[in-house]
Amino acid sequence: MSDGSALPDLNPVAGFRLGTAMAGIRKPDRKDLVVMELAHGSTCAAVFTRNQFCAAPVLVAREHLQQGVPAWLLVNTGNANAGTGAQGLRDARACCAALARHMGASPVQVLPFSTGVIGEPLPVARIVEVLPLALGQLSERGWEEAAYGILTTDTVPKGASRVIRSGVGSITVTGIAKGAGMIRPDMATMLAFVATDAVVAQEALRQCLAAAVEQSFNRITVDGDTSTNDACVLVATGAAGGPALEAGTPEFAELCAAVAEVCVELAQAIVRDGEGATRFVTVRVERGRDAAECRQAAYTIAHSPLVKTALFAGDPNWGRILAAVGRSGIPDLDLEPVEIWLDGVCIVRDGGRAADYTEVEGQRVLRQSEYTIRVVLGRGGAADQVWTCDLSYEYIRINAEYRS
Amino acid sequence: MSDGSALPDLNPVAGFRLGTAMAGIRKPDRKDLVVMELAHGSTCAAVFTRNQFCAAPVLVAREHLQQGVPAWLLVNTGNANAGTGAQGLRDARACCAALARHMGASPVQVLPFSTGVIGEPLPVARIVEVLPLALGQLSERGWEEAAYGILTTDTVPKGASRVIRSGVGSITVTGIAKGAGMIRPDMATMLAFVATDAVVAQEALRQCLAAAVEQSFNRITVDGDTSTNDACVLVATGAAGGPALEAGTPEFAELCAAVAEVCVELAQAIVRDGEGATRFVTVRVERGRDAAECRQAAYTIAHSPLVKTALFAGDPNWGRILAAVGRSGIPDLDLEPVEIWLDGVCIVRDGGRAADYTEVEGQRVLRQSEYTIRVVLGRGGAADQVWTCDLSYEYIRINAEYRS
Repeated sequence: MSDGSALPDLNPVAGFRLGTAMAGIRKPDRKDLVVMELAHGSTCAAVFTRNQFCAAPVLVAREHLQQGVPAWLLVNTGNANAGTGAQGLRDARACCAALARHMGASPVQVLPFSTGVIGEPLPVARIVEVLPLALGQLSERGWEEAAYGILTTDTVPKGASRVIRSGVGSITVTGIAKGAGMIRPDMATMLAFVATDAVVAQEALRQCLAAAVEQSFNRITVDGDTSTNDACVLVATGAAGGPALEAGTPEFAELCAAVAEVCVELAQAIVRDGEGATRFVTVRVERGRDAAECRQAAYTIAHSPLVKTALFAGDPNWGRILAAVGRSGIPDLDLEPVEIWLDGVCIVRDGGRAADYTEVEGQRVLRQSEYTIRVVLGRGGAADQVWTCDLSYEYIRINAEYRS
Repeated sequence: MSDGSALPDLNPVAGFRLGTAMAGIRKPDRKDLVVMELAHGSTCAAVFTRNQFCAAPVLVAREHLQQGVPAWLLVNTGNANAGTGAQGLRDARACCAALARHMGASPVQVLPFSTGVIGEPLPVARIVEVLPLALGQLSERGWEEAAYGILTTDTVPKGASRVIRSGVGSITVTGIAKGAGMIRPDMATMLAFVATDAVVAQEALRQCLAAAVEQSFNRITVDGDTSTNDACVLVATGAAGGPALEAGTPEFAELCAAVAEVCVELAQAIVRDGEGATRFVTVRVERGRDAAECRQAAYTIAHSPLVKTALFAGDPNWGRILAAVGRSGIPDLDLEPVEIWLDGVCIVRDGGRAADYTEVEGQRVLRQSEYTIRVVLGRGGAADQVWTCDLSYEYIRINAEYRS
């Protein structure tokens, strides 16, 4: 459903340079290799997929990250280097080593990221060959090209940027992401790279990223699948200068808010670009006993193929939504106080269809391209929400035909 | 994918009569009302949906069942009487009362079952009006008509029957079921009615049904949704005579095996008739630490929209299957010993694509209409399996267009 709108302005982050090149990894004539360089003195935090069969680059990136702050991120698209066994690990290490050799550094200073088809050997030679081109392109103005260089089946590039005036001066947060079927394992979907020029110590940066991811990438679903290659990296170059932002201070809270905003914008862009998506839907569950049960109900609704096909049809089929809540595993759930709202239209109340509800009003909401399904459980004070899209013929086409 | 084949011979069960009529509940000129009568002295066990928002007839049937063995089962299709609040409960009770009045009995001797559209008031008057017609049709030979009379979007009627020569003589087990989108809540999918002429005490019959359901209806999935109206009933009329079959005896085990066979045949018929299904797939997970983790992995594969679209395409996309196993939540899972087989073709071994695998062989298996995906976890001695189907354009069409 993405309207192909251009990227927003992506403000450069002092101390963070990006270079993009064409390696011909899967297709000729497309940008498919990106190098990112972190200024000396940066800090870096990362979260990776929880899929237990994670890809070779994820294993290597985790291992290298434990040995200190990296100086380079090396990203290729077109090939996920997943399901590639021992050879895959050797290939990921070979790419890191090649970059390190060029820069006179150690391979552990390079974190590898791959996305693309699963189970094919990584074409290391092609990557190594164009590394010098990517390095030659390194620039603080390289964000836009990199946003294109990390895409797979995405129909639009995804970027977001904020400049905040904080107590410690002006701070920039800029990020790019890829992902269009949250998550299609064979395209190893979600990658996100966010950088700021703030000065942030390692542990505080880790907290900042964890909080941002929890509000953004952990609240979206297109099809409920989890990739073997997912990763999100947050870099703080410190180029803005001043004292390090400490957890618990207002300045740190301001930075965290900006990072979260960038991540939410990137996450929503992924859902909007969901494979075959024609609607962007916020599923919000309120007045639960705790946030976990609200989230559980929201995800059950957002994952239900029956609900998703009804959303595609623009059909206010509240029976399917209600049934999803009923099977979501929330204990001792009472139907009586439950309400369901489509934007401002109440569709379920008092154990059934709301007396004043009309099909015309429900359809008016569901024929919009964006709206909110709000479920009120009426048994507590907690709330949570997820963002999702509908399930269309196009999703089937994309995923049934991808490899052929 | 059902080929429209006729029902198998459904052997009459002495002491169990069925009558079918046309009430015009949702559509004119179709059989939509079924009454089943249990001979005096029968025992009866039932399992109902675990959805917490269960429909009015489920609440009433549970309540009546607690007060003793029912004498009649009253089933309507076309309207689920779900999401209908207090009025729905009154309507379900009114139907039971009407049948009881005709027979000079108590309403608690009637169990109501409804399937069809959610949230519409049950047309009680139409049901009450044709009850005499259904009662006039009561016959031990009424199975086939009843198999048609309980259908909703099913494309074929579903029935199964066994006659066993047991130590206590000849025993018949016959059953019918409806369901085509396991489970589409607004069609309130799965209903199954199984009867035997064996003599079985109440508690033993409950055990027999629980074991049969666990091997059959609890092992199928079309889209992972759970209906508000699901129910499965097992009746033992005792007309075969002889002593009551006791749990723990060989004769009881023989009966349980026959009931399980009938239930498996009905459950598989539901998957074969799955909405838009073009393939019938057994997902078997072996050599896990316990059956629960095997089942968990099997369901994660069977529910993955990415796997299901690949099955539709006949695409041996092992990356998607492997990724589904990896995210299934099994603790400490090691990729190294995992194998994936498509019937007799090994596609994954040693952490990646099997060295001797060829795409031609994989496609040959996946282009069949029925096959087995076998995942070997290589960490224990347990196994379990589920049956599922693919996800096609037709599923989207059926579920996006159903209410329009």
